[in-house]
Amino acid sequence: MTGVRGVHGFFHPKTGTGRSSMIPAPPWHYSGDLLTVEYRTDPARVAELLPPQLELADEDPGAVALIWADWQSCSAGRGELLDPVRAQYKECFVVVRCRYAGVTYSRCVYIWVDKDFAIARGLHQGYPKKLGSIHQTRPHPYGPAPRIEAGATFGATLAAADRRLAEVVVTLREPAPTNGFVNGHPMAHHRWLPSIAPGGGLALDELVVTGAESAEGGQAWAGDAELTLFEAPTEELARLEPIEPIGAYYRQVGVVWNGGTLLASGASGAR
Amino acid sequence: MTGVRGVHGFFHPKTGTGRSSMIPAPPWHYSGDLLTVEYRTDPARVAELLPPQLELADEDPGAVALIWADWQSCSAGRGELLDPVRAQYKECFVVVRCRYAGVTYSRCVYIWVDKDFAIARGLHQGYPKKLGSIHQTRPHPYGPAPRIEAGATFGATLAAADRRLAEVVVTLREPAPTNGFVNGHPMAHHRWLPSIAPGGGLALDELVVTGAESAEGGQAWAGDAELTLFEAPTEELARLEPIEPIGAYYRQVGVVWNGGTLLASGASGAR
Amino acid sequence: MTGVRGVHGFFHPKTGTGRSSMIPAPPWHYSGDLLTVEYRTDPARVAELLPPQLELADEDPGAVALIWADWQSCSAGRGELLDPVRAQYKECFVVVRCRYAGVTYSRCVYIWVDKDFAIARGLHQGYPKKLGSIHQTRPHPYGPAPRIEAGATFGATLAAADRRLAEVVVTLREPAPTNGFVNGHPMAHHRWLPSIAPGGGLALDELVVTGAESAEGGQAWAGDAELTLFEAPTEELARLEPIEPIGAYYRQVGVVWNGGTLLASGASGAR
Amino acid sequence: MTGVRGVHGFFHPKTGTGRSSMIPAPPWHYSGDLLTVEYRTDPARVAELLPPQLELADEDPGAVALIWADWQSCSAGRGELLDPVRAQYKECFVVVRCRYAGVTYSRCVYIWVDKDFAIARGLHQGYPKKLGSIHQTRPHPYGPAPRIEAGATFGATLAAADRRLAEVVVTLREPAPTNGFVNGHPMAHHRWLPSIAPGGGLALDELVVTGAESAEGGQAWAGDAELTLFEAPTEELARLEPIEPIGAYYRQVGVVWNGGTLLASGASGAR
Repeated sequence: MTGVRGVHGFFHPKTGTGRSSMIPAPPWHYSGDLLTVEYRTDPARVAELLPPQLELADEDPGAVALIWADWQSCSAGRGELLDPVRAQYKECFVVVRCRYAGVTYSRCVYIWVDKDFAIARGLHQGYPKKLGSIHQTRPHPYGPAPRIEAGATFGATLAAADRRLAEVVVTLREPAPTNGFVNGHPMAHHRWLPSIAPGGGLALDELVVTGAESAEGGQAWAGDAELTLFEAPTEELARLEPIEPIGAYYRQVGVVWNGGTLLASGASGAR
Repeated sequence: MTGVRGVHGFFHPKTGTGRSSMIPAPPWHYSGDLLTVEYRTDPARVAELLPPQLELADEDPGAVALIWADWQSCSAGRGELLDPVRAQYKECFVVVRCRYAGVTYSRCVYIWVDKDFAIARGLHQGYPKKLGSIHQTRPHPYGPAPRIEAGATFGATLAAADRRLAEVVVTLREPAPTNGFVNGHPMAHHRWLPSIAPGGGLALDELVVTGAESAEGGQAWAGDAELTLFEAPTEELARLEPIEPIGAYYRQVGVVWNGGTLLASGASGAR
Repeated sequence: MTGVRGVHGFFHPKTGTGRSSMIPAPPWHYSGDLLTVEYRTDPARVAELLPPQLELADEDPGAVALIWADWQSCSAGRGELLDPVRAQYKECFVVVRCRYAGVTYSRCVYIWVDKDFAIARGLHQGYPKKLGSIHQTRPHPYGPAPRIEAGATFGATLAAADRRLAEVVVTLREPAPTNGFVNGHPMAHHRWLPSIAPGGGLALDELVVTGAESAEGGQAWAGDAELTLFEAPTEELARLEPIEPIGAYYRQVGVVWNGGTLLASGASGAR
Repeated sequence: MTGVRGVHGFFHPKTGTGRSSMIPAPPWHYSGDLLTVEYRTDPARVAELLPPQLELADEDPGAVALIWADWQSCSAGRGELLDPVRAQYKECFVVVRCRYAGVTYSRCVYIWVDKDFAIARGLHQGYPKKLGSIHQTRPHPYGPAPRIEAGATFGATLAAADRRLAEVVVTLREPAPTNGFVNGHPMAHHRWLPSIAPGGGLALDELVVTGAESAEGGQAWAGDAELTLFEAPTEELARLEPIEPIGAYYRQVGVVWNGGTLLASGASGAR
């Protein structure tokens, strides 16, 4: 874009060339491994996380998915893959479901990532990202690491601000038709930014719907999970207390993300 | 805020209690040490970083301040100071000057920090923050570290994505009336967020003015700097090539930040 | 040392020039802030950490010092201070006392640091260092951070492997003649390395005595501590359970370390 | 080992139970991906890194292998794999060849890792480990990341102390019988530790030979590399200047390491 007067770049910092932007324009391409744990919590704990604009899902409103993902991601030019400090990141996120205008959506209510470009993408997509330290066992064809097969065990952990927030061990049991249902709808997310004026409410209050433009993936596997959530003074993940397990899943996927649609503006009711 | 229906929290993630918010509501309080290097670059290199809405400063339009800061910060309740992983962060940032509606402003054009709460504050304040690795020599009353006195030497470095971007050594010479002039005006910053729709332009495009609500500080010191900037494929800091030194400064300060004012919306001309 | 045939360098990697060595030869110079918490645990818990060669101290054998330190360190040439990523580190360590040949010594039984050069020094000095994430409130003359004065509060935390292991808040009360007694003797440390042959016992088994060659410091302050230790699967810090508080202290110091003396070899009785 | 009097643990810190040891006793099991670049440098640059006890290899004495590895590792009980912050690490290391007593050995002359347990293992094995930041593209079956196949490109980078030290892009060409020859011999390593007394020479000076107890692996692939080495004030990697490329390789492996043999003690001639 050099040569055109004015600043460019999909995200800040905007410059004459656009080259400094923390993230490139979509589409964004992803290769990754997903470890998913689904369980039921008290639906009131889910309701606490929904702004007035959204309602609980009609069916199974207390269903929660806690998902670890180990990603390599890049722009259309794929250059980040060859300087992998700019492509690789891990995340752990929590998805619930909700209803808006009669339609059921998935919604990410908490998410931790370990790179700044992932935080910037989240700001665009409405994922409420913080930094964390995320680890998950990787499948491998040789040595002690697990293959993706019956009996294989995968561990995953999440920490933030030097405190462990969650840990899980999943033992694979059998192939499965999906890797869960809670994260299976389009995402209804809010993009919120407070006004710069003190007490001025929200300067940006958008309800957007987003999802993968395209996706491919390998065989999903189902298994059993032992999950522990830990209290922390600045986190509320442990309020989504597991009451009843639903399932646990492993799947390798490829995904393309390319924007979304504005559903409503200025009406979330959030403060 | 518990008990009020709806989600709360100054920033995401918003919850029933607001306790999970990545940052608390302002005012934000800071204690820190500032190492400042001022120099002149080609004014055209500054102009490349200004959206059409802003003009170069009338006087000394090529003046640049490169500032390292070592902060402890907290909300009004000061609790973060006692869990210091949530209070301490370092940053390195670049300030230029510009004009809007006949008034001269300072403006941060690049900034790197090492904590997520600092990134979130930047999104609110219009600082274009990325993550980096930032280090600066600390003064100390005993042992080999420098006192703040004539002849003392302070080093500072910046890296991002595993590449060193800048390094400086400053030797203090004498007390000075200020620690520079480039960062001395109210800040004219943009808060930009792209539309969720592909190619949809900007969903948020605000020109805001912000600055310290109050500040105190110790004696400023002036000195001489040896500065080196390094090229990197995703950064353009080295385009702000030093042509002529202005000065170098050290100062310890306390600052309160408490919001700003919206100057204009939707008119930056940025793409 | 270039030009002399053979490899050089105080530590690995040894090269023709010695320039790559992870650490320079002593003396090593330090500027830092020490936050110390002393308490009594069951002396049997201290005894568990002593090899047969050492005995419990005669007086107050259950006394423990848990010390946080925020350091800038360098070799005699002081060059590291100007590239501060190579000079600054933080540590948290646990000191008990013991007796050998009728003399009372201090002894570090656990220690976590956040830089590799600090680990290398520990291998030389007999400090049993692991990596950790360590934070402590810094005093500052301006803004919300504390001055060193009555009523000031300092927090400090320790984490390793994404789990918090310890946290403390210390409130300063009054000037004090010392910053504790547990860490006040010369250190009796072991330098152990297993044989490369499986089951071959120890290849290195040295009892050494070390301590500061010289030290200076500011006024020590005494205060009160609220200390919490946390369990972790690969740590035993929490076994040193606090039964009775002794005191808490803050002091800024400068230290020079320059080697030690071999007391005994091959006789620790450790396995 | 609880209940037996005295301290236990394969490595420090030694305790009554041995549970705190930074590393468990061998055997150690590994799953990982190896990206290898082999080239010729001036043999004099290799000779500079060999103590007088060792000679240059007879054939191709200037051959160098620069190897990136992305590991999951564990003890015999495999528990670390399920708390993967304790199992996963990355490394970048440099291997040359040498002769001792008429036999050709491989020898690691530089190595950077990103976890403390890897540093501890290196101290036992004679690998001269420092901390670094290491990244390499991972193969993946879906999305933009490469499959292991002709034309696939893998990038890898190394940084330490906030400076990039090496980067490479490897393009796979065809299956190959091996993934190189420089790292193909048993390793002749030194385990050195200075005396605690200033100027006291070496307290430990062992020449050991080690290697995998067993290994398995997938099809090796050969390809072409674009390698860049960067200068840094505390590193000499760039002195091993590439003069002529040999080859580049990718291979996934499983390895067991279980100790080695002492070849000589006190005779390295290192200072």
